[in-house]
Amino acid sequence: MKNIFVTGGAMTPFGRHAGVLAPELAQRAILEAMNDAGVEARDIQAIYCANVLGGMILGQLIVRDLGFGGIPVYNVENACASGATAVHLARHAMMAEQYDTVLVFGIEQLTALGGGTIPLQRNDHKTELYAKAGMVLPAVYAMRGTRFLHERSATPADLAAVAVKNRRHGSLNEYAQQRTEATVEEVLASRMIADPLTLLQCCPSQVDGAAAVVLRTRRPAQGRAVKLLSSVVVSGIRERADDDILDAEITARAARQAYEQADLGPQDLDVVELHDAFTIAELLYYEALGLAPRGEAVALLQSGATRLGGRVPVNPSGGLLAKGHPLGATGVAQMVELMWQLQGRAGARQVEGAKVGLTQCTGGGIAGVDHAASSVHLLGV
Amino acid sequence: MKNIFVTGGAMTPFGRHAGVLAPELAQRAILEAMNDAGVEARDIQAIYCANVLGGMILGQLIVRDLGFGGIPVYNVENACASGATAVHLARHAMMAEQYDTVLVFGIEQLTALGGGTIPLQRNDHKTELYAKAGMVLPAVYAMRGTRFLHERSATPADLAAVAVKNRRHGSLNEYAQQRTEATVEEVLASRMIADPLTLLQCCPSQVDGAAAVVLRTRRPAQGRAVKLLSSVVVSGIRERADDDILDAEITARAARQAYEQADLGPQDLDVVELHDAFTIAELLYYEALGLAPRGEAVALLQSGATRLGGRVPVNPSGGLLAKGHPLGATGVAQMVELMWQLQGRAGARQVEGAKVGLTQCTGGGIAGVDHAASSVHLLGV
Repeated sequence: MKNIFVTGGAMTPFGRHAGVLAPELAQRAILEAMNDAGVEARDIQAIYCANVLGGMILGQLIVRDLGFGGIPVYNVENACASGATAVHLARHAMMAEQYDTVLVFGIEQLTALGGGTIPLQRNDHKTELYAKAGMVLPAVYAMRGTRFLHERSATPADLAAVAVKNRRHGSLNEYAQQRTEATVEEVLASRMIADPLTLLQCCPSQVDGAAAVVLRTRRPAQGRAVKLLSSVVVSGIRERADDDILDAEITARAARQAYEQADLGPQDLDVVELHDAFTIAELLYYEALGLAPRGEAVALLQSGATRLGGRVPVNPSGGLLAKGHPLGATGVAQMVELMWQLQGRAGARQVEGAKVGLTQCTGGGIAGVDHAASSVHLLGV
Repeated sequence: MKNIFVTGGAMTPFGRHAGVLAPELAQRAILEAMNDAGVEARDIQAIYCANVLGGMILGQLIVRDLGFGGIPVYNVENACASGATAVHLARHAMMAEQYDTVLVFGIEQLTALGGGTIPLQRNDHKTELYAKAGMVLPAVYAMRGTRFLHERSATPADLAAVAVKNRRHGSLNEYAQQRTEATVEEVLASRMIADPLTLLQCCPSQVDGAAAVVLRTRRPAQGRAVKLLSSVVVSGIRERADDDILDAEITARAARQAYEQADLGPQDLDVVELHDAFTIAELLYYEALGLAPRGEAVALLQSGATRLGGRVPVNPSGGLLAKGHPLGATGVAQMVELMWQLQGRAGARQVEGAKVGLTQCTGGGIAGVDHAASSVHLLGV
């Protein structure tokens, strides 16, 4: 695979950015990422904008006053995996030797939409049916949680422990929306959203944020070069009545392909940023990514291996649960976090000596599209 | 450039598809295109969905029940150039040898949104300002039309003649929404939308449609192979006070690049499908694409060269003006029309002996992003 380097990156703090419009928010991340990469507008040959709910030609509206001279702008959407998908499409073009230097950014302003879960589409009868039946994302994950507790003889406290860990991590991250720690008792005592998932087990839906990376085919002259080792996007297979809802098939498949591309395995990972939209998701992804054998997710969590200081810290940024989940931005922000980790720039949440990292995003997962997208990237120094 | 062939294509009739939801509409075009290409779901390695206003993971919702087994689906948006941009991104991946066979489709259901011009984003203060000032697309093109009449000593009848030509072409196309001819007098007598553009000089905004193509790196075993000779997407430069609104700079730049890629020039074209969202646009694009020298657009039209039977028929399908403009579908449908033309399958509107064709789309063009995107593709047999 052609060498592609993450030569610079930045993100805005994730949180409520009231009164700031999307272009301004995204521009902050973009300009800082370009500065971090040591590139100017004239160096960039193409721009990929990841966004879900911001509307038509958002990328162009964001970059129009930044001095880019007529280069292509591509707007990419893949639900919560939009940011990762944008990186993936940028890589295609770089592998095809169309561009040497590209800017990829993600942006979402969920506070502009009011509260509640992500708005569902009403494009087909099946979605309509699912939405009316209450099958929004928290409900889907709650069903997985319930099944998990039953099959694994796990307890609600085991789920809550994921939030405890990630909020602890988030308390160390100045970019995280949630910066207060919580105990298992506090997590369990928070408002019930969809049994067994309490409020602190669901990623915040009232959050804005943007993140940007500069990808180049040339190794940077200075600093520790972070290489994109693999990049995979897949879609889910259609639902079947006998589907195992604890088997994150799509993510397992994406991970297998990503490991194969890089000729690495889960044992090689030093740090992971994964899609903990709900506590149960992190446990399922431990298994899908091969961090734990099937059935051993809770044991892995309890061993302390996935917390800062452990063997393979997962979501040192605080993850979606603590950092927040501005949809289009998330996949790009995961990559920025890993870049910082692999360059030793992650401050209080630094994973010491991290050499190889993995990011994972899923998108969709409603209305029987389980899931619409999953993306796994491996980065290394 | 790696060989890429348009091995099959299809579109739904463009028009009001009341009661048909987006997935069903798109599936009709997809299944017919696959049948035309002689491929099955298992042959397809990736799917690109072009759509502007249909919402999150529309591509996945459309294809989920068609038997594709977990292959990636990419949702692409670039306003009216979305379909062409999706083809362009698919080509990147094929050039990078990621896929041999991909499906690209575009879909839009404008009737589901009610009437009026395309909804504007409210993502930034400048757009808000432009929208409140009435600078929607018909107004932008009306200003170009007014300037054109002044600078070229042209008459409203010269503009109307574009609609007369394209409605004549559309009357021969069973996929066109507008299938009745109109005289110059009738075009001029239709309701004024934005002076000098009357109703019949604006593409219909109440239209639904879908189109799909199958792209392969292997030359098809049967039939006349239609090759993608070049593929370009660029963005506009930011507005300046001294911009010449009659200079379609972005399209001229895209065309130059496309001709260079294919080592061809405008004199080599046998047939063109271009973005006649308004009559004035077609005249400006004659010059931007090099079909006529600067200042000679009206003369070219009046010569009859661009009508069926002429030297280089433009919009034999009827174009956006007669066929209709379901945003995401348009760029893909242009490509299907050219495939039919180059294979001699265009029926009553056939351009005899056509060997090389060009498609052109622009996207955006509001709020000072002039334009957000322009795409030019060349196809040949």
